[in-house]
Amino acid sequence: MSSERLIYLPLGGAGEIGMNAYVYGYGAQDAERLIVVDLGVAFPDMDGTPGVDLILPDIAWLVERKDRIDGIFITHAHEDHVGAVAHTYDQLGAPIYARPFTANIARRKMDEHGHPDDAVRVVAGWPDQVQAGPFKVGFLPMSHSIPESAGLIIDSPEGRVIHSGDFKLDPTPIVGEPFDPDLWADVSKDGVKALICDSTNVFSQHPGRSEVSVGPEIEKLVRGHTAGMVVATTFASNVARVKTLAEAGVAAGRSIVLLGRAMRRMIEAAIETGVLTDFPTVVSPEDAKSIPRENLMLLVTGSQGERRAASAQLANGKYMGLELKEGDLFLFSSKTIPGNEKGVIRIINQLSEKGVDVVDDSSGLYHVSGHANRPDLERLQDIVNPQIVVPMHGEHRHLREHVKLSEGRGRTGVLAVNGMMIDLSGNAPTVAEYIETGRTYLDGAVQIGALDGVVRDRIRMALNGHVLVTLILDEEDEPLGEPWCELMGLAETGRSKAALVDVLEEDLGQFLGRADAKTLRDDDNLTEALRRIVRKSAQDEIGKKPEVTVVISRMH
Amino acid sequence: MSSERLIYLPLGGAGEIGMNAYVYGYGAQDAERLIVVDLGVAFPDMDGTPGVDLILPDIAWLVERKDRIDGIFITHAHEDHVGAVAHTYDQLGAPIYARPFTANIARRKMDEHGHPDDAVRVVAGWPDQVQAGPFKVGFLPMSHSIPESAGLIIDSPEGRVIHSGDFKLDPTPIVGEPFDPDLWADVSKDGVKALICDSTNVFSQHPGRSEVSVGPEIEKLVRGHTAGMVVATTFASNVARVKTLAEAGVAAGRSIVLLGRAMRRMIEAAIETGVLTDFPTVVSPEDAKSIPRENLMLLVTGSQGERRAASAQLANGKYMGLELKEGDLFLFSSKTIPGNEKGVIRIINQLSEKGVDVVDDSSGLYHVSGHANRPDLERLQDIVNPQIVVPMHGEHRHLREHVKLSEGRGRTGVLAVNGMMIDLSGNAPTVAEYIETGRTYLDGAVQIGALDGVVRDRIRMALNGHVLVTLILDEEDEPLGEPWCELMGLAETGRSKAALVDVLEEDLGQFLGRADAKTLRDDDNLTEALRRIVRKSAQDEIGKKPEVTVVISRMH
Repeated sequence: MSSERLIYLPLGGAGEIGMNAYVYGYGAQDAERLIVVDLGVAFPDMDGTPGVDLILPDIAWLVERKDRIDGIFITHAHEDHVGAVAHTYDQLGAPIYARPFTANIARRKMDEHGHPDDAVRVVAGWPDQVQAGPFKVGFLPMSHSIPESAGLIIDSPEGRVIHSGDFKLDPTPIVGEPFDPDLWADVSKDGVKALICDSTNVFSQHPGRSEVSVGPEIEKLVRGHTAGMVVATTFASNVARVKTLAEAGVAAGRSIVLLGRAMRRMIEAAIETGVLTDFPTVVSPEDAKSIPRENLMLLVTGSQGERRAASAQLANGKYMGLELKEGDLFLFSSKTIPGNEKGVIRIINQLSEKGVDVVDDSSGLYHVSGHANRPDLERLQDIVNPQIVVPMHGEHRHLREHVKLSEGRGRTGVLAVNGMMIDLSGNAPTVAEYIETGRTYLDGAVQIGALDGVVRDRIRMALNGHVLVTLILDEEDEPLGEPWCELMGLAETGRSKAALVDVLEEDLGQFLGRADAKTLRDDDNLTEALRRIVRKSAQDEIGKKPEVTVVISRMH
Repeated sequence: MSSERLIYLPLGGAGEIGMNAYVYGYGAQDAERLIVVDLGVAFPDMDGTPGVDLILPDIAWLVERKDRIDGIFITHAHEDHVGAVAHTYDQLGAPIYARPFTANIARRKMDEHGHPDDAVRVVAGWPDQVQAGPFKVGFLPMSHSIPESAGLIIDSPEGRVIHSGDFKLDPTPIVGEPFDPDLWADVSKDGVKALICDSTNVFSQHPGRSEVSVGPEIEKLVRGHTAGMVVATTFASNVARVKTLAEAGVAAGRSIVLLGRAMRRMIEAAIETGVLTDFPTVVSPEDAKSIPRENLMLLVTGSQGERRAASAQLANGKYMGLELKEGDLFLFSSKTIPGNEKGVIRIINQLSEKGVDVVDDSSGLYHVSGHANRPDLERLQDIVNPQIVVPMHGEHRHLREHVKLSEGRGRTGVLAVNGMMIDLSGNAPTVAEYIETGRTYLDGAVQIGALDGVVRDRIRMALNGHVLVTLILDEEDEPLGEPWCELMGLAETGRSKAALVDVLEEDLGQFLGRADAKTLRDDDNLTEALRRIVRKSAQDEIGKKPEVTVVISRMH
């Protein structure tokens, strides 16, 4: 056996849906040349990451080996695949390869960060290939819920690997290339060592439906609503859907208004790159004001209930001078991603209060998924006929189920989660190494580690409140005046009916009156003692143990 | 027309699912005698109510009129209906009426708070009636997902009102009384003025399924799993389901273990009150350790992913000496309430990591809802034939849809949300008044108002971090030493690569060096100036504007 090896290492996306970042390497152990597939983000929430702006994969392992990276390949322009390219560019510096639409989106991100445009290189689809160190990488067109998604054909001296990217098997995707089974069969005919495969919908038992199937239903719905305004929201990146919605509006005699930055940006990118042609003319929100509302259709961002997006703003009140009212129709042409339910329901109820009729996806008529369902995964396996299947783009439950499915079809399935380096060389895959992985938070303008304790402290303050104790000691280490407390996020009064702040100051004062010189001399001991008193007194008074910060000032 | 009137006033539950509290009154305006139907809680979350323990309805309106309250009637023992009785007892003091099982649960709550047992009065079902001021109230048995749920027949000089409580139309509910259409028709035959009706499932288009339908499926599943342990979770209060699960386990030769306080408590209450008979013998977790795992079935709390419940603990590691492993089966015999998805998915993934097979409700085989679906709501209307329908127990979208449904059937529908007092007297209902309502938080041991700012401050600290500034001024109002900063929940370094705390102290020091005597003399102005500097410097350094607390100490 050769001493060279072919490795696969997920740094994000394997054990979660989001934040995709996969590494392939080929070469002698610990000297492999590397390529990166996708560099995406995940989105924070109040539960686990309050105040955080974006979640990025921890790329420390890559940064240590940046001189070995020959390229970064982006399969498609969804945020969980491309969202981190600009944030990580300073650290990695490698050229970024993508098809035109994806590259357009990536370049916008690079521009915003002041990075050079030409770091993003536009590549054509298969049969073109990019030489990147020992790899030759080709972009094989694949249907998904965004234009120009691609699977990657990754050729190395150890054979051909196919990285599926996100996909569905759609013969009629409206925008972008249909899935071409013959093409996929052709690239697979000489043998595929491993298929690294999207697992999102492995629990969905029925074959996926084509994007084309929602058009007639949407048109029927929009035509049927003759009274007020029609508003529809979907994922801004689903250009095909936006087109379908717009065409339904036009067919019903309505002028189209695009609301929300992401919506306009995506349509702009799609038109610029020639992916989207003959999109209906749109009118500006300004011009829309002079059009009767029964002749208007708004296409808006915020299908996931995002607080600042157009949907939420319209549900709340006016947005860009437009306002919803009784008799209007609001369509969610989208599914709610688990975790976003509350935000979406909040909007639906606000719309209900305005008398707006809401149609969501519960009927199944107005949305189709962009991911391959179980029978589609099986079909792709049959076409590609890979020796090994390595599920990715899934939580643990998805990966495990996808491995079972693969093994049930007589293939080798590998359950590789983030940080698990798989040696794909030779006849049987093995775990080569476990790499420490994790998450980095973009917090305001800086990146912080998930384990730095910053977010943990925020959560603690949110759960427990925060008490600040200040104490001044004179030259003899005697308290100068009384200790002082400030409370934030705590009840004002407790069991004794006295103000909590007074009770705490009283208890601290009593302690200090009794404290000996030794205690008063030692900052650490004194701080700890004061903290303990505050926590105990607060527990007695209000039944909570707050976070406590003690500031001791000494007059010498 | 008489000067007496019949009013209905929801204080909680109309505009949300949870925290039910409805008031009925009869008498001269502003002198009505009152009864309260249900006093429930809602559950907090990190998004909107971090650190809060329970959410209670704001009963200020009732407290001001406590001498006019003739009774509190609890329809059933779910937390969103009975959860607040003990927390509000000191403020209201009125007798609480409930059927035996509900009363048993209510008394346990009263005991925990040191309230007298006999404040909860056990009443029999219809045709018994309780005289409460001008009202006669009867408990009409109704099927739901907990034993002894009841609709209330509320008779007043203005006629009969029926308050449905939570219900489904189940002819075979396993535990408790089936829905009896003849009984409901009989109580309605002389005319029903208004039906105040559960709206939870108004968007579910198919007739509801009976509790009995899940038994055979559960038994098939449990029998089919012959390898390791079987674990099932459901709502602890769904005594019928717990019984079905236990019987399926016994039929498959397994010993039953109940895990989780709520699970044991509910079964205990159901046996004590005679509601549940012939429940299989259970073994203790201690004894279970010596039984082979293929002969064990655990029935556990935590179907909603609650962090401290048995499900979460088992998914995490050992619980009560029991541990799950590869080959075990875990059944969610429950649906996930919107908002709880992340917690449930976390558990499923942890179980997946252990190699445990998880079966959830996606097949629809192992759970049925406890609420009436749309056709069931229609059927009940047909039976009761009320003049007016007032939807309750729903978010705004549910209430609105339920009003539409009622109006579509030729009835008067009234959309009454929390705080909207409806005058049901005479021939057409009218809005009598708008009452200020809201929520109260149980926070540790104390109740705080939702608008007190306490929780708002917690959320701000969680989103923005917290900076504490301490400054000492001498007798001449000159700074004594440098200002001091402490950070919590903030990145340590920012753009300048220097420690953020140093940058802030430096900027504050510079400001103080330039500040004139007037600025230094005025605490408010000085505090505001220091806060502004911290926020601006932090924004420049780390791109975030933290919460700032300033403590100024003066040496005079």
